[in-house]
Order: sequence, then structure tokens, then C-alpha cells
Amino acid sequence: MKTTRYIIIVGCGRLGSNLANIFSKRGDSVVIIDKNDETFNKLSPDFSGFRINGDVTQMAVLNNAKLEQADVFIATTHDDNVNLMAAQVAKKIFKVSHVLARVFDPKREQVYTRLGVDTICPTTVATEIFVQSVLKNNNNTKDTNE
Amino acid sequence: MKTTRYIIIVGCGRLGSNLANIFSKRGDSVVIIDKNDETFNKLSPDFSGFRINGDVTQMAVLNNAKLEQADVFIATTHDDNVNLMAAQVAKKIFKVSHVLARVFDPKREQVYTRLGVDTICPTTVATEIFVQSVLKNNNNTKDTNE
Repeated sequence: MKTTRYIIIVGCGRLGSNLANIFSKRGDSVVIIDKNDETFNKLSPDFSGFRINGDVTQMAVLNNAKLEQADVFIATTHDDNVNLMAAQVAKKIFKVSHVLARVFDPKREQVYTRLGVDTICPTTVATEIFVQSVLKNNNNTKDTNE
Repeated sequence: MKTTRYIIIVGCGRLGSNLANIFSKRGDSVVIIDKNDETFNKLSPDFSGFRINGDVTQMAVLNNAKLEQADVFIATTHDDNVNLMAAQVAKKIFKVSHVLARVFDPKREQVYTRLGVDTICPTTVATEIFVQSVLKNNNNTKDTNE
């Protein structure tokens, strides 16, 4: 038994294109949406999904992507407002069961959580990793007896 | 016994200011450098470190920050070239033992590794977290017998 998913990704920047390539390679059905069609150049030559050139803040674009059939919806643009709006529409109107969004401003994470949207804030994650790396490396630093 | 470190952070954006606030709160000596002094507004009111308003691609700024005494040097700007240059100077000229850099283009990570610089690529990390989240949520999606 193999699980295939219908995954819609908004934004074909580094993150969106990485995800599209990975899920497409895994055999999932992937649709990627970006308003700038040059970004589709980042997709791997063997990407087997669909590209939609359009603005996700327009309902016609979301209808065209068949959101009502999606298992997973991922908003990865660099604009927190666009991600929030798209995630909200995917969750509330199209009832997509698993909605994820990148969020740059950690203060907005609460809003997403209330909506049932999984978020990742790259700054928060990067901060944690840097702090852990510095603390782990403690032994190499100067000790001060206090 | 408490370990205090002398930590220099380049770039006072979201990541840099987060790190500066955290390490300052932990009691470390922190110096933060940014060429745009408005970014220092992101520092917490109880940040007890030093702010240097200057361009790290100029050696005078690095001398002013006393890199030769630093235990940790962290480059967090949004410009991979600036981070790479600063990390290289910190490592090779000022012999800072622990140098970390944010890198946006994963292809550059090899160059840093050769220099002995710890890197974190937010896109790579975000990709992994999104993929894991989607795979973990498999049970909620439609199964296809094949």
C-alpha cells in the first residue's frame, strides 16, 4: 500500500521549490503556484507536477488548483499576509485537512494556531540552532570563576 | 563556576537581535554590529551589550569590535557574501575559535565547511521540518491501494 497525496504549494522560492521537488520525487501529486513564472526555473527537470502562474489572493487561481481535493496545502511566500490569507481560505473554505505556512513574524504565530494551521518560523528555528551550537561549544571558551 | 563568553554578532535583523538579546540575558558580553543603526531598536530594553554602527566589510569596524578577544563570532546578515567575508576574516585573521554564519544559498555551505565555519541554512531547515510534518500527518490523508 502506498500513500499518495495531493499537495498544493504556494510560492516557488527556495523553500517552495525544494518542497515541490521532494514531494514530486516521492510520487505525490504536486501543484505549485507562483505569480512570477520565472521562479519555476528552480524546479527540478524531473518535477512531474503542475505549475500554475497566478496570484493566490485571487479566488479563481485557488479554484483552478482544485483546493477542495487537496490533502496538504503549504504557503511558503515571503509575504506573511499572503500566507495567512491563503492558509485561512484553504482551511476554512476548502476544508483542506493539513495546512502549513511559513511565518516570518513570530508574533503572528498565535493567529495561525487559532486557525489550526501548522507554522514554521525560520528565524525562531535558526535562533534555537545557533544558541544550541554556542552552548555546546562551551568547552572551547574561557572560563571565569565566580 | 560560570562561563561567560565574549560574543560578536554581525547584523541586527530578527535573527541577530534575537541572539543578542538571549546571550545578553544569559550574562555573556555581547557586541552587535550593524551598518543601519535603526535596527538596534529591535534590541530588548535590558540588552546590556555594545552596539557598533558600521560596515563589517571594513577592517576598522572589526578592529573596533576587538575580534581578537572574541570567543564566538556569528554572521547573520541577509547577504551571503558579507557573512562569508566576515566569517573568513574572523576565523583566519582574528583566530576566533567558534565562528557561525547564516547562509541562504545551500550551495555555499561547502565553502564555509572548508573554512571551519558552522553554518545554518534556514531554507534547508524549514524544508526538513515541513517534510517531516507532512509525512507524520499521513494518517489523515487518503490512502490508495497499489
